[in-house]
Amino acid sequence: MLVVAALGGNALLRRGEPLTARAQRANVKIAAESLAGIVRAGHQLVITHGNGPQVGLLALQGAAYKPDEAYPLDVLGAETEGMIGYIIEQELENALGHDRPVATLLTQVLVDRDDPAFQKPTKFVGPVYGKEEAESRAKAAGWHIAQDGDKWRRVVPSPEPLEIPDMRVLQLLLDQGVVVICAGGGGIPVLRRDDGSMIGVEAVIDKDAASALLARQLGADALLLLTDVDAVYRDFGTDAAAPLHSLTLAEAESLALPAGSMGPKLAAASRFAEGGGISGIGRLEDAVAILERQAGTCVVN
Amino acid sequence: MLVVAALGGNALLRRGEPLTARAQRANVKIAAESLAGIVRAGHQLVITHGNGPQVGLLALQGAAYKPDEAYPLDVLGAETEGMIGYIIEQELENALGHDRPVATLLTQVLVDRDDPAFQKPTKFVGPVYGKEEAESRAKAAGWHIAQDGDKWRRVVPSPEPLEIPDMRVLQLLLDQGVVVICAGGGGIPVLRRDDGSMIGVEAVIDKDAASALLARQLGADALLLLTDVDAVYRDFGTDAAAPLHSLTLAEAESLALPAGSMGPKLAAASRFAEGGGISGIGRLEDAVAILERQAGTCVVN
Repeated sequence: MLVVAALGGNALLRRGEPLTARAQRANVKIAAESLAGIVRAGHQLVITHGNGPQVGLLALQGAAYKPDEAYPLDVLGAETEGMIGYIIEQELENALGHDRPVATLLTQVLVDRDDPAFQKPTKFVGPVYGKEEAESRAKAAGWHIAQDGDKWRRVVPSPEPLEIPDMRVLQLLLDQGVVVICAGGGGIPVLRRDDGSMIGVEAVIDKDAASALLARQLGADALLLLTDVDAVYRDFGTDAAAPLHSLTLAEAESLALPAGSMGPKLAAASRFAEGGGISGIGRLEDAVAILERQAGTCVVN
Repeated sequence: MLVVAALGGNALLRRGEPLTARAQRANVKIAAESLAGIVRAGHQLVITHGNGPQVGLLALQGAAYKPDEAYPLDVLGAETEGMIGYIIEQELENALGHDRPVATLLTQVLVDRDDPAFQKPTKFVGPVYGKEEAESRAKAAGWHIAQDGDKWRRVVPSPEPLEIPDMRVLQLLLDQGVVVICAGGGGIPVLRRDDGSMIGVEAVIDKDAASALLARQLGADALLLLTDVDAVYRDFGTDAAAPLHSLTLAEAESLALPAGSMGPKLAAASRFAEGGGISGIGRLEDAVAILERQAGTCVVN
């Protein structure tokens, strides 16, 4: 099978940990073992990953040094594809004993300049602040901010991914048995100008949405959305809570999970399953078991 | 011909400019026109680039934010491969009218853990300081520093590049007509442990040396080392100064240029020419003319 596996933020950083290179590498080392299991089970593998905390960190570092020379989000996204892609590639190569080529490909993802997200930023980036500090930072740096639980955070536009221009290169690598790490952080967001040229844009693309698009464009057999929760739950947070092992598209839609929960993951899973593939949502450590439908939540058409 | 073109620092940033994303993009746009000329002339192209100022910037940003959570040089190098690779890829795709695939590949480069460079750091990274400030920063951050002209700068180990493990993936892409951007900043320096696994190391590899190794391993026909000087000069800085249009290996060796001048470029050019290829040194804008031996300095065996 051709499998697209999307690593959630927890594969890189556990809650409460400092965002250091050392912490990321220790977590990625564990993730790499699970990903290597997919390759050892005989599957072709494409890996994507989130970058929310890392983009936030780079923005904060830049602001601490020279706030008036801040780098735009497309360039920061490209930096995180380098940073995170490198650590994943190295640890996965080590886990596979260097007998299988692994490549990290920078990936631009086309978005629509008329996407309503540009008028209404909603994607959280970086650390949480008290209201007052968030407001003062927003004023200084031109951020939009929004409430996240009882704290406040920077929000940026999160437009829908439309097209992955690098698909041809990606396909070439997969045809030759290369394990590919790509579309990190949902890809580097770019717009197409009237003259056909491309230019980066201040936005962050949802990595699950980008992964679903990637999986569909590749004609993948399975999309795995890997996180630190073992499954999608019915009546989550109540006494009646129960994991859902399998969902049809109609059942997935009827769940109507709130935003900020597993909702976006389920939406991405459904979008891919519509095209005939199998989507799985569950714990990173269970990746192979989810593929075998022994763990996690499976969404099928 | 298969051409490896190494972009010097000035392709990304001109002397005295602020190190902003905007300045880098404006310079890369000009560089992309020259590189597109090589592709339009019918050649296969691999592009490498420097990253000294950018690694320095990321280190300073990190130090300004949380000095005790500084990222190591291998990870910073990977970040710059993302940042710079993205801008080059996008501008080159635009210059080529999106009718030729361009891919940016993260590239690890193996170095020897017994390389004497680890005992004696010599590669300048980041901005210049007065002696006192350099010493105080060195003390705070554990830097090595050295004199650069009448100023002082951080220095880091610059070991010899030994091997490019990602060669197989790179070759696959070239075989399919993809223009590849790789080995940015000389590649991400890694060591091989006793158990065969790889791990990043605090170092920066000279991009001209890495480019020469890459060109040899690929069996390239030409290596272009592109900068802002039109040629290697005899008696540079004197009234007798004259550009050298062609050099044999023996002539190149007899020049004995001082370090910090064109010396390292000439050494890398000679190393590649030893294997039978043609090396060219000259201005970025003259890339095609250098290939046709109408400009720059050519080193042949």
